[in-house]
Amino acid sequence: MTGLHTDLYEIRMAASYLRRGMTGPATFSLFARSLPRDRGFLVCAGLTDCLDFLARFHFDDEELDYLREELRLPDGDLDALANLVFDGDVWAVPEGSVVFPDEPLLEVTAPLPQAQLMETALLNFLTFSTAVATKAARCRIAAGGAELVDFSARRTHGVNAAFAAARLSAMVGFAGTSHVASAARFGLRAVGTMAHSYVQAFANEREAFRAFAEDYPEAAVFLVDTYDTPAGVLTAADVAKTLALPGERVGVRLDSGDLDALSRAARKILDDEGLPDARIMASGGLDEHAIARLTAAGAPIDSYGVGTKMGVSADAPSLDTAYKLVEYAGRPVMKRSPGKATLPGPKQVYRGEPGEPDVLALRTEPPPEGRPLLTRVMWAGERVGNGHELFDARTRFEHDLAWLPEAALRLRDPEPVPVRRSARLEDLLARTLRTLPPPGE
Amino acid sequence: MTGLHTDLYEIRMAASYLRRGMTGPATFSLFARSLPRDRGFLVCAGLTDCLDFLARFHFDDEELDYLREELRLPDGDLDALANLVFDGDVWAVPEGSVVFPDEPLLEVTAPLPQAQLMETALLNFLTFSTAVATKAARCRIAAGGAELVDFSARRTHGVNAAFAAARLSAMVGFAGTSHVASAARFGLRAVGTMAHSYVQAFANEREAFRAFAEDYPEAAVFLVDTYDTPAGVLTAADVAKTLALPGERVGVRLDSGDLDALSRAARKILDDEGLPDARIMASGGLDEHAIARLTAAGAPIDSYGVGTKMGVSADAPSLDTAYKLVEYAGRPVMKRSPGKATLPGPKQVYRGEPGEPDVLALRTEPPPEGRPLLTRVMWAGERVGNGHELFDARTRFEHDLAWLPEAALRLRDPEPVPVRRSARLEDLLARTLRTLPPPGE
Repeated sequence: MTGLHTDLYEIRMAASYLRRGMTGPATFSLFARSLPRDRGFLVCAGLTDCLDFLARFHFDDEELDYLREELRLPDGDLDALANLVFDGDVWAVPEGSVVFPDEPLLEVTAPLPQAQLMETALLNFLTFSTAVATKAARCRIAAGGAELVDFSARRTHGVNAAFAAARLSAMVGFAGTSHVASAARFGLRAVGTMAHSYVQAFANEREAFRAFAEDYPEAAVFLVDTYDTPAGVLTAADVAKTLALPGERVGVRLDSGDLDALSRAARKILDDEGLPDARIMASGGLDEHAIARLTAAGAPIDSYGVGTKMGVSADAPSLDTAYKLVEYAGRPVMKRSPGKATLPGPKQVYRGEPGEPDVLALRTEPPPEGRPLLTRVMWAGERVGNGHELFDARTRFEHDLAWLPEAALRLRDPEPVPVRRSARLEDLLARTLRTLPPPGE
Repeated sequence: MTGLHTDLYEIRMAASYLRRGMTGPATFSLFARSLPRDRGFLVCAGLTDCLDFLARFHFDDEELDYLREELRLPDGDLDALANLVFDGDVWAVPEGSVVFPDEPLLEVTAPLPQAQLMETALLNFLTFSTAVATKAARCRIAAGGAELVDFSARRTHGVNAAFAAARLSAMVGFAGTSHVASAARFGLRAVGTMAHSYVQAFANEREAFRAFAEDYPEAAVFLVDTYDTPAGVLTAADVAKTLALPGERVGVRLDSGDLDALSRAARKILDDEGLPDARIMASGGLDEHAIARLTAAGAPIDSYGVGTKMGVSADAPSLDTAYKLVEYAGRPVMKRSPGKATLPGPKQVYRGEPGEPDVLALRTEPPPEGRPLLTRVMWAGERVGNGHELFDARTRFEHDLAWLPEAALRLRDPEPVPVRRSARLEDLLARTLRTLPPPGE
C-alpha cells in the first residue's frame, strides 16, 4: 500500500489539480525551520525510505475501491489517480551529512499533483530518521572513544522503528545492536548479555554466572546489579577465574545505581582479581548528557548500552520540518504566515571550510565557493547516482563530524553553523514578497 | 519474521535455559514503574499487537540460518529453537482501560525460555501504544466537547506508527484521522482540507478557495492563514456566499498565530457574513496544554487537528515499563536493584468505586472487593475471550474516563489513584525478601 499512505488533503488537492489541468512542474522543499533545544546540527537520514516509497508509488485496486466507495471520488478522479506514478526529479542531501535550519534535506520537482501527494510520507521518513540519527550522534560525541551499543528495540515506536534505530545508530558510529533482526538485516554486530531474570531463575547469582560462562565463554558479560553490585562483580571475577576464562572475554554490566562510583569499584575489583582486561559496560536510561557526565568524570566504562532515550529521541522525538511549495510552473512561491515564512525557489547549499558559514543559494545560480550538498538522487522517477549504502552514510558522517566546529558540537546551548543566503536568493525573496497577492485578494 | 524480533540476550538466555532443562513455568509481569511527569493515569493499549505476535511466534528457516551461520549457535540450540512456539497463558488488562504504576498491564506464564523470548516485543508494543493512547486521552480531556482529529501521520516514527496513532486516538474519542490508509484499515472517518501549497498554486487566495469549493462543496474547509488570516476568513465567507454553499458545510482552518484571538475574529466575520453555522478548525503544533488554554479562554473553536505532539507523545515518548520475572517453578522471585525493585508473584488488580484505591493482590488469593482488571486473553497459546475490537476498547475508555477522579484527570500535577497492596502480597514480599540469596552468593 502506497497511494493511501498520505493525508486526505493531499488526495483532495491532487484530484482538484488534476481536474483543472494544473500539472505544471512544482518544486517542494523539505527543510527544518529550527533546531530542537540543545541541537547544534541535524544528521540527515531517511532518504533510502523516501526513494523506495517514490519508486513504487501507485494506487492499487483496493485503494481505488476505497476512494470510490468510501470517499466517493468520481470516476474521472479515479482514472487520473490510477495512472499516477512518480516520475519527477529529486535532489537531496545524502544520509549521514549534517545540515542546519532552512537548508533543504530534499527537494522534489514533479507535476504538481505528484509532488503534492508525496508530502506526508517524505516528511514522515525524513523527520523521524533525522531526529533519531541526530540523537544517536550526540551520544557518540558524548562517549568520546568508548563503545556504544543500541539497546532501544524494546521502546521504539513499533518494530519498524527498532530497525531504523539500529541502522541509524550504526550510521553515526554505534558498534552494534541488541536487536537481532536488525543485526541480520543490516549486517551489524549483535550484542547481548543477560537479564536480571536469568540471575533470578537460578538458585543464586553464582550458579547463574557459572552457567552463563559455561555456555558463552567467548563473551561472558555478567549483569552484576541484581542483588548487590560490588558483590556481584566479585562473584563474576571469581567465576571467571574458576573457569579460567581469558580476561578479555570477560565483562560486567552495570544497570542501576551511581554508575561513576560503581564503575570505579568494579574496575578496582576486577584489577585486584587479576582481570585488568575485563570490560565494564554501563546501561540503564542513559542519554548523551549522562554519558558526557561519566566521560568527564573519567568513569572507567568501556561500553555504553543506549536504549530508550536514543531510540525515541526522547527530548526531541520530532523536528520542526516542513515540505513547502517554492516554485510552480516557473513562478517562485513563498508563504508569509507568522513564524512559518518560507523562501522561494529551488535551492542548493554550499559548504566551505571549517569555521565558514554555509551558503543557501538558488539551485540555478552560478555556484559560489564551496561544495554543493544536494545531489540529484532521482531523475524522471528513476534512481540515479549511488552512495546510499549504510557504509557510505557512515563515512559521510565521520567526515562531517570532523568538520563541525566545537560550538556546534556542544551538547548544551550549542551554536549551529550560520547559514548565509546568497545575494540572488535575497533578491528573489524581495521580488517574490512584492508580487504576493495583497492580503485578502 | 518473529523469532529474531528480540534482543540477543533473550536468545542467549533462552538457549541456556533449554540446554539445562530449565523449562519450568515462569511468570513475567509487565508494568510501569512510574508515571511520566504530568500523567495521572495510563490508558492500556497495544494488546492486540502482543496477541498477534505471540500467536505467530516461531523461528523460520532464514532466521535459524542466521543464528547458525552468523551467531554460531550449535545444532542442539537450533533444534530446540526450531520447535519453540508460544503455548503459554497470558492475562492482561484489555485495551482502553486505565491503570496506575505497579499494576500489571500483562502477565505471561509459560515455560521459562518462551516467556523470556517474548520480552522485547511485548515491552515494545505495550509501551509505545500506551504512551500514545495516554497522550491522546489527555488531548481529549483538554478539548471538552470539541471535536479532535488525528493529524500526526507526517511525524510519527514511521508508517506503522502512523497507523497506531490513528487507531489509538480513535480509541480515546478522536473523531477522525487525516491518514487515509488508517481510515481505510480501521473504518475511521478520513478528514482533510487543503494545504498552503494549494492556495499558493493558484494566482491568488480567492481563486484557490473558489476552486476548492467547486470541487468539494460538501466539506469546504478553507485554510485561511497563508497570507493574512482575517482577510482569508472574509474571502472564504465571500466565496461560500457566492457559491451559495450551506453554512454548515463551510469551515475555516487556522494554522498559525494567536488561535484564541484569531478564532474570535473569524467567528465574528463568519457570523457577520451570515454564516453562523460555519465551523472553525484549529491546528499547528497543538498539545493538551494548548488546547486546554483555548478551551479555558472560551475560544470559539469547533475542531482541533492534533498532530506531532500526540503522535509521538512528545513530552513522554516512552514509559518506564518493565517485564520482570515474578515467579519461576513455583518459587516467588523479586529484584532489589536500587530504584528498580519488583514485587513477587502473579498478580491481579481489583478496582472499586470512584474515590477508592485500587488493590494490587496475588492472582491466586481470595478476591477482595472490586472488579478484577486482568482477564485471561491467551490459554495454552490460544486466544480466549473477546472484546478486543476497537469499539470495545473505546467503550472501556469512556467508562474509565468517567470513573477517574478529578485529581487524576488534571493535566498538570495530577494525583494518580493510589494502589494499595493486599495483605497477602505484603506478606509474600516480606517472605521473599528474607529468602533472597545474601549479596554476593
